[in-house]
Amino acid sequence: MAQKPKLRIGLIGTGFMGKAHVFGFASAPKVFDLPMQLELHTVADVTEAAAHRAAADFGFAHATADWRRVIEDPEIDVVDITAPNALHKEMALAAIAAGKHVYCEKPLAPLAADAREMAEAAEAKGVKTQVGFNYLCNPMLKLAKEMIAAGELGEIRGYRGLHAEDYMADAAGPFTFRHDPAGGGALADIGSHALATAEMLLGPITEVMGDCVTMIAERPDGKGGIRAVEVDDVGRAFVRFANGAQGSIEGNWIATGRKMQHDFEVYGTKGALAFSQERFNELHFYATADAPGRRGFRRIEAAPDHPPYGRFCVAPGHQLGFNDLKAIEVAGYVAAIAGEAPEPFNFRAGLRIQTLVETIQRSSRERSWLGVPA
Amino acid sequence: MAQKPKLRIGLIGTGFMGKAHVFGFASAPKVFDLPMQLELHTVADVTEAAAHRAAADFGFAHATADWRRVIEDPEIDVVDITAPNALHKEMALAAIAAGKHVYCEKPLAPLAADAREMAEAAEAKGVKTQVGFNYLCNPMLKLAKEMIAAGELGEIRGYRGLHAEDYMADAAGPFTFRHDPAGGGALADIGSHALATAEMLLGPITEVMGDCVTMIAERPDGKGGIRAVEVDDVGRAFVRFANGAQGSIEGNWIATGRKMQHDFEVYGTKGALAFSQERFNELHFYATADAPGRRGFRRIEAAPDHPPYGRFCVAPGHQLGFNDLKAIEVAGYVAAIAGEAPEPFNFRAGLRIQTLVETIQRSSRERSWLGVPA
Amino acid sequence: MAQKPKLRIGLIGTGFMGKAHVFGFASAPKVFDLPMQLELHTVADVTEAAAHRAAADFGFAHATADWRRVIEDPEIDVVDITAPNALHKEMALAAIAAGKHVYCEKPLAPLAADAREMAEAAEAKGVKTQVGFNYLCNPMLKLAKEMIAAGELGEIRGYRGLHAEDYMADAAGPFTFRHDPAGGGALADIGSHALATAEMLLGPITEVMGDCVTMIAERPDGKGGIRAVEVDDVGRAFVRFANGAQGSIEGNWIATGRKMQHDFEVYGTKGALAFSQERFNELHFYATADAPGRRGFRRIEAAPDHPPYGRFCVAPGHQLGFNDLKAIEVAGYVAAIAGEAPEPFNFRAGLRIQTLVETIQRSSRERSWLGVPA
Amino acid sequence: MAQKPKLRIGLIGTGFMGKAHVFGFASAPKVFDLPMQLELHTVADVTEAAAHRAAADFGFAHATADWRRVIEDPEIDVVDITAPNALHKEMALAAIAAGKHVYCEKPLAPLAADAREMAEAAEAKGVKTQVGFNYLCNPMLKLAKEMIAAGELGEIRGYRGLHAEDYMADAAGPFTFRHDPAGGGALADIGSHALATAEMLLGPITEVMGDCVTMIAERPDGKGGIRAVEVDDVGRAFVRFANGAQGSIEGNWIATGRKMQHDFEVYGTKGALAFSQERFNELHFYATADAPGRRGFRRIEAAPDHPPYGRFCVAPGHQLGFNDLKAIEVAGYVAAIAGEAPEPFNFRAGLRIQTLVETIQRSSRERSWLGVPA
Repeated sequence: MAQKPKLRIGLIGTGFMGKAHVFGFASAPKVFDLPMQLELHTVADVTEAAAHRAAADFGFAHATADWRRVIEDPEIDVVDITAPNALHKEMALAAIAAGKHVYCEKPLAPLAADAREMAEAAEAKGVKTQVGFNYLCNPMLKLAKEMIAAGELGEIRGYRGLHAEDYMADAAGPFTFRHDPAGGGALADIGSHALATAEMLLGPITEVMGDCVTMIAERPDGKGGIRAVEVDDVGRAFVRFANGAQGSIEGNWIATGRKMQHDFEVYGTKGALAFSQERFNELHFYATADAPGRRGFRRIEAAPDHPPYGRFCVAPGHQLGFNDLKAIEVAGYVAAIAGEAPEPFNFRAGLRIQTLVETIQRSSRERSWLGVPA
Repeated sequence: MAQKPKLRIGLIGTGFMGKAHVFGFASAPKVFDLPMQLELHTVADVTEAAAHRAAADFGFAHATADWRRVIEDPEIDVVDITAPNALHKEMALAAIAAGKHVYCEKPLAPLAADAREMAEAAEAKGVKTQVGFNYLCNPMLKLAKEMIAAGELGEIRGYRGLHAEDYMADAAGPFTFRHDPAGGGALADIGSHALATAEMLLGPITEVMGDCVTMIAERPDGKGGIRAVEVDDVGRAFVRFANGAQGSIEGNWIATGRKMQHDFEVYGTKGALAFSQERFNELHFYATADAPGRRGFRRIEAAPDHPPYGRFCVAPGHQLGFNDLKAIEVAGYVAAIAGEAPEPFNFRAGLRIQTLVETIQRSSRERSWLGVPA
Repeated sequence: MAQKPKLRIGLIGTGFMGKAHVFGFASAPKVFDLPMQLELHTVADVTEAAAHRAAADFGFAHATADWRRVIEDPEIDVVDITAPNALHKEMALAAIAAGKHVYCEKPLAPLAADAREMAEAAEAKGVKTQVGFNYLCNPMLKLAKEMIAAGELGEIRGYRGLHAEDYMADAAGPFTFRHDPAGGGALADIGSHALATAEMLLGPITEVMGDCVTMIAERPDGKGGIRAVEVDDVGRAFVRFANGAQGSIEGNWIATGRKMQHDFEVYGTKGALAFSQERFNELHFYATADAPGRRGFRRIEAAPDHPPYGRFCVAPGHQLGFNDLKAIEVAGYVAAIAGEAPEPFNFRAGLRIQTLVETIQRSSRERSWLGVPA
Repeated sequence: MAQKPKLRIGLIGTGFMGKAHVFGFASAPKVFDLPMQLELHTVADVTEAAAHRAAADFGFAHATADWRRVIEDPEIDVVDITAPNALHKEMALAAIAAGKHVYCEKPLAPLAADAREMAEAAEAKGVKTQVGFNYLCNPMLKLAKEMIAAGELGEIRGYRGLHAEDYMADAAGPFTFRHDPAGGGALADIGSHALATAEMLLGPITEVMGDCVTMIAERPDGKGGIRAVEVDDVGRAFVRFANGAQGSIEGNWIATGRKMQHDFEVYGTKGALAFSQERFNELHFYATADAPGRRGFRRIEAAPDHPPYGRFCVAPGHQLGFNDLKAIEVAGYVAAIAGEAPEPFNFRAGLRIQTLVETIQRSSRERSWLGVPA
């Protein structure tokens, strides 16, 4: 165990997601038998004080107010970017150029063109990348994917997916970077999760008809004025999948009362699945093969039968939390860096989501169906 | 009470819906203090034997194998049509011409043009009409409508409605009249309920973008052959409401495992509602005015607070059943005939639903947004 | 059909349950193919005016303010008693003496000794009796009973049953006949339902340890004074069943927020069932025989697979209401009168429930386990 | 931050709970601003190999096969005992004698007499203790406790609590230490959680009537033979609280299909709460003060409004997992050691639970109500 190679991490950004990443780094090695030993090397924030405080709180050995020092440091193996979205590209490209592996929070970049540049740079350089789509790490989604792949639902015909919350429902809430025309909006921010889940389960979406709507047309600019909002509060789409299925997708950040309605239903010829992130340790399964008069959606509770749940809890029903999903994400990424497994959700995958988002947005603007570029 | 005027009913058709209407006629006078006395006068079915059996079972005084005799009989006040959809128009027009009130099961007619002819004939003649959209009679929908109208949700921004079942999910199921290109399909058959509920709650839909998909392209014709299916198995739409709200609608009869997913969510600036016909004695209400840390969707159970529930049960929680909704429908119609209230859902309203369905279907074919004719 | 023998009904009492019985009489013949033709002959209430109004509203041919005229009338076949509990015995014994079949609302009598006298009188006279425990008529309970009997749950080990509501939770609510020391209290009033369901599903309870608690010690007497309450607000028991299972029972009428928590769970060696009257068109079934990783409680929705649901609705998911259960009760009773089936829940069964209630009450007073008399 | 005092931990036992404690040690400092710096000093297991493997996996600096070395090591501040129950007493007393703080998994000791000795030793020595009842650390339970304390439910009248699982439902499962007559059984193993939750919310239980039942009378002894089981598979009780409320408690490890039914309902004069550990990020709240026709149980989802949820996730709906509860437990214990807060659940509290368990067991044997020793 002492002989495990070290993986030295440099973290840029110490907000909510930075903290969530640190939780992942802390728990992943306890939960999993990682092939590498994680070392929290350096943390960067906008001021020296903030960086040093984060270093102390989070357990990093070094701190800096200059993110470029993280990238230049030859001791650092992985650059972990949780800085504002607008900076992702510059930071990631610099890190890739320096030969670092790069772990980047979603969205990978505001625009698909930027994401493509990043993905191609990483592939050319041969570094391992990861985009933080941690809902996908849920063992119950893995179960759903496996059940579909194994044909337990038969041929898949239909899909209904959404991600609705209400964090932008208050019209008095100020204009933020999430409202920026380049890359913002409900579809990009959380509809992206609905899209990622849909493709994880059913494979590629080939065609979309989008409907992106701005319901709160202006917001306080935080300086006493008003600023027009151009991004969507609700972004939805009709979709077609390469496997022949059809369905719909919705991202919605003004869904009053909803805190985590990242839900889906999948309908096949032999069964169906229903899931809600509101109760993400459950998967509901209907099987037409059940006896007549005994059919119904079964509430399957997360259990050691559903890896890697058993790494966290040895008995069923104990339940994983949001931060546990981050630990699974970290473990998958470390395994990929160690060459033991493919990258779970690399920059190419992040690009794919941006492509879907932009195609839906364009479809909405053009009011016409569009094919999704491969 | 003996002085209550009689309302003599002639029923055409004795299948599922015919029976449900009879349940309504039987229980409505017990439940409500109707202004008229219902008399089951004559029942018509395709054979004399079937008609006489139905008369005995259901309690009609007379029976006939010729539906025209129902219409011609001067003693009959109301003609109730639960015959196959294709016959609705001919029967209804004849009954209207004879000056009868007409109660007609949904859909009013396969085509909006026919429905319009029927609505205009009824209005010209001055008879009272009713189309059977009995889900709308649910006290919890009435509550939802009142809460919205009273501003309890604030300004309405979003809507998500669907009606999904799985009665056509088996590809081996035979071609039926519901698969007929003129008037069939999931959108017309049950998506119509989703549309009716949406407009009942939020008012008129002004624009739609439709997506009607046939997933089971051919079915056994019942004679050893195969017949191509042209109607939609899933019919959905993006919608815009005159009140400024936006949303989506779906009708789906291949939703494996779903038996009665006639659901909606309404999002307003001050609250939200969530409903499922799977548990139609409940309405879930979220209020932003609740204290911080105490907010959540409240499960309101049907109770005497929600008229006319108290007519059926004097205490909360006892629950209404599907057939009770029919009794409410009958009571509303009888009140309209007696001149005590407006028609709850007349032919004009039935026409409206057909218009919406056809506009969505056309939008789907043309792959473009369409305004909905007023 | 015309040759069906008539069954002429005399109803005593026109309150909530009287009305519910009339609903049952009205709909049962429409829903079921009854072997007899029901005729609403006479209704009795405390005044002539009330009786005549009820006759008109409910469709009875005759009305009277003297309940004895119902019993004496040679044309009447069935005496249906929905008068206050305290009168059940006198009315029922008179009706039995007159050779009438007797349909009596629950509780059969305040005291088991009275109930026994009534049951024995009916058996001696050979008339058919029925006590109104209509929750038992739910097709989902019938399903549960059949699944247990068929061994689908394996050997039954445990049971947890309750019936909790909040209609007496308000301490300002006045003293009523339900608070009468002879026969009142939560255990007798609704705990009786929990007991009836338990024995329907698992067979006889042999031993009990009771705990009956009065939480609201006095109530307004309706005349400006206060009256002490001696009956239980919560009555619960540990129980043992003859089949070897053990469990618990609770009746509770001060369960704030609960409107119809008539729930049970049954645990067997091979499976389990969970049910709530709050959603009484569902039964939840867990089977250990399901594949590992795919196990969970299945939400079985009421459907034509579960007779007699199909008599009411031809498709699943439409749902029965409380009054439909009354129609099933009526149909079962009429079949028994016609000699086609055993009495579904006769006076002997009603006596059984009173015996259980009284044994639990006595056990609570004596603070010791008691055997339940056979 | 570098000036934070160190808290050096010695862990005995590396099984499920040992691992869960390590998760807690790993994440607590990231999540909370702890007043001390945790150092994983030494881990002890039964063999050197196992201990060294655990040290490497979990991040301890030292390893030993002799648990006494942990206790003797002057560098160690806290001895954390997750060894088999039978060893808790010996280990804890030795650690206390050595002046160590002691963190001990539940149950504190098989017998209350032992637990008392341990509690008194710790108090005499002045060390800080903690027993692992981590379900109590759930922010939603804290919310429930605060709501009750603040009078939001009015005066509390009733309580129904249980903890039911099915991990012993298979009669072919072997005899284990949990079946040991001294300290085993469902009531002690998980009924203890139901008891702890009940007293956390409502305060002391003063009287009990117990019912402990063995349903699986013998089990394989793991050596080809059979061993009689004397402990309860189901242990339940009627209870009285010092605050005047009454209720019931159940522990059940043969509840087929149930994985984490640690549920409760609390009924007060002004409201009610319902909770299930199956969905432990939710609390359901009914308020009689809500408007008529708008009342219902509100599903409150865990959010930053419910500390310390916000330490883990900055937005509502993300959800905590089982291991997060352990981190909260650790943080509370560290704060107590640092003198910043009282011990959250010390040996005295652990003793209390044992006292309750034993009183219920004795009541069951004696078939009589018993007062609970203070």
